[in-house]
Amino acid sequence: MSFSSFVPTAKLLMGPGPSNVHPDVLKASARATIGHLDPEFIGLMDEIKSLLRLAFQTENPLTFPVSAPGSAGMETCFVNLVEPGDKVVVCINGVFGGRQKENIERAGGIPIIVEDPWGRAVSPDKVHSVLKENPDAKLLSFVHAETSTGALSDAKTLCEIAKEFDVMTLADCVTSLGGVELDVDGWGLDAVYSGTQKCLSCPPGLSPISFSPRAVDHVMSRKHKVQSWFLDLSLVIDYWQGEGARSYHHTAPINSMYGIHEALLHLSQEGLKSAWKRHLDNHKRLREGLEGMGFEYLVPEGERLPQLNSVIFPTRVKDEAGLRKKLLLEDKIEVGAGLGTLAGKIWRIGLMGYTSHPDNVDYCLGAIKKHLD
Amino acid sequence: MSFSSFVPTAKLLMGPGPSNVHPDVLKASARATIGHLDPEFIGLMDEIKSLLRLAFQTENPLTFPVSAPGSAGMETCFVNLVEPGDKVVVCINGVFGGRQKENIERAGGIPIIVEDPWGRAVSPDKVHSVLKENPDAKLLSFVHAETSTGALSDAKTLCEIAKEFDVMTLADCVTSLGGVELDVDGWGLDAVYSGTQKCLSCPPGLSPISFSPRAVDHVMSRKHKVQSWFLDLSLVIDYWQGEGARSYHHTAPINSMYGIHEALLHLSQEGLKSAWKRHLDNHKRLREGLEGMGFEYLVPEGERLPQLNSVIFPTRVKDEAGLRKKLLLEDKIEVGAGLGTLAGKIWRIGLMGYTSHPDNVDYCLGAIKKHLD
Repeated sequence: MSFSSFVPTAKLLMGPGPSNVHPDVLKASARATIGHLDPEFIGLMDEIKSLLRLAFQTENPLTFPVSAPGSAGMETCFVNLVEPGDKVVVCINGVFGGRQKENIERAGGIPIIVEDPWGRAVSPDKVHSVLKENPDAKLLSFVHAETSTGALSDAKTLCEIAKEFDVMTLADCVTSLGGVELDVDGWGLDAVYSGTQKCLSCPPGLSPISFSPRAVDHVMSRKHKVQSWFLDLSLVIDYWQGEGARSYHHTAPINSMYGIHEALLHLSQEGLKSAWKRHLDNHKRLREGLEGMGFEYLVPEGERLPQLNSVIFPTRVKDEAGLRKKLLLEDKIEVGAGLGTLAGKIWRIGLMGYTSHPDNVDYCLGAIKKHLD
Repeated sequence: MSFSSFVPTAKLLMGPGPSNVHPDVLKASARATIGHLDPEFIGLMDEIKSLLRLAFQTENPLTFPVSAPGSAGMETCFVNLVEPGDKVVVCINGVFGGRQKENIERAGGIPIIVEDPWGRAVSPDKVHSVLKENPDAKLLSFVHAETSTGALSDAKTLCEIAKEFDVMTLADCVTSLGGVELDVDGWGLDAVYSGTQKCLSCPPGLSPISFSPRAVDHVMSRKHKVQSWFLDLSLVIDYWQGEGARSYHHTAPINSMYGIHEALLHLSQEGLKSAWKRHLDNHKRLREGLEGMGFEYLVPEGERLPQLNSVIFPTRVKDEAGLRKKLLLEDKIEVGAGLGTLAGKIWRIGLMGYTSHPDNVDYCLGAIKKHLD
């Protein structure tokens, strides 16, 4: 075995995530590791919680990054809120809604499915009907920003409907956090999970979550133990919350926490509204260029995520995989392939976090144009 | 909110982990993030698997780092190998054996407990008797290196006993990997999990695991789905294994993978035997100094982990917590407190990975002496 240090080729990450990481975040992640119970680190944890509350627009005390990627954040939400036999209305309009259903089933819950076409937002009318038909549903779960299709659902309206039927709400905000409006308290979301590798300009590896006091009450009064020890919030809470001394639960990924702190600091300095506007502006710039070359959007206007552009190629693209490969190897640009039933049919062009910059848009458009001409 | 970038005070980490991280590993972790399906990254994953096999001394194809800390590695082993109703003989001689029992129960298994005093190795005789009484046991689980007590159990003998009764073996190797002999194939361990923040000189956040072909067969022929979607090896395997293209499961913590690659590269260059000898030599140096000041070892000789020294303070130490605080704040040395029933009774002084160096031993001994004099 004669391996050597790994020095990756720097690339422009315009896929569905990871996006490019801010150099300050990489720098922060490489600072000296300290202990996970060191008072200095506890202070950092407190700052991360405050900064995350700002990003999520919430005052929920239970707001912190789970020590694992977004899929584990999703699982944290479901295994803590769903008990065996619980009915959960779950909206499926892409890969991640399907994954939510899988999580519900593995937690012993009964999923009641609201289905919408891939590439469309969740239909509030359908959700209303299904909740009306299922008065014993405990939870409504949906994906705010479907990373597999680029569709943005109307979380505010979905929460209003849930309120009417007095069910809790759980949303996948992996791709929305920091990229489009997300108002956890204003909308009344009870549980949300996100990721670091999308609009936060951070490497993947952590999953920010936030639970409303009502959701925490549910966790604390469960009849059955949470099936996962690692993700059991009734235990993890003693490490992330409380005054002064914290109890050891697991060893937090110290350096990744340095990274998310720096990334959230940048977001707070830019301001949420400015960050959303930046994502929208760069989306418009990209859209204009793509449409000029004959690309068409999968998602109808008004339901589109600015930070994730799902586009159908013009007919002159005969070999989409070959073209993606050229972009990656020749131009050092990663664009995303379609996922699930959309594989081979669309590209997912991300403009998230640090990637979302006019220069990157122009460089990507130029490269695509060069290969098409 | 007026936070600024977090710049931790560099410390000498002589607790039970994290240990100090090699500067090359921090440097590697800060390299440009690339995509989790990028062919360059797939190449890196393959190297990580090869290097991990070397560290574990195994040829198991299913050998990779779980995308979350050691506790998630533990959970990966149990949720994949234990099905509802399965009997598991679990050895408890410290905190982490207790956590294994908790994992067995949450996976629906029936734990049959072999108990030994905290600070002692697992008794092979007791294990033999209990396996004899429980011919229907499916699995024997134990902690190779008990991080809560500093006791090293005889994994080789325990595996021989398990073989006699034809049960699979599962071991916690969080603190042993890279610090003392660990021979997964030679001993016949079926499933092992470890951590990065102990003897690998890496930040916390990943959990290397290895499953024997027999263990993989068990996973693949389960009657029930694994309760965790995130940790389901029948799904994760499509991302970590196979020729050429890999299926998306979750987004791997890219930069942490750069780090473990660099750390494993260093271990392979030092050589396993040299690394074990270094840990032993520095242990002897520390022991001599500590015993000279009146510290006594909790664990009897022959059952001690060289890399984790559990010591009872001399009677002149009236305020152990105060002394630890002085070491941390004045001398920038972190030593570990006792855990569970050993809280307030022992210190856990780690000499793991990059921390394990004669200069660090001398500096720590000098600081303790200064405060005691």
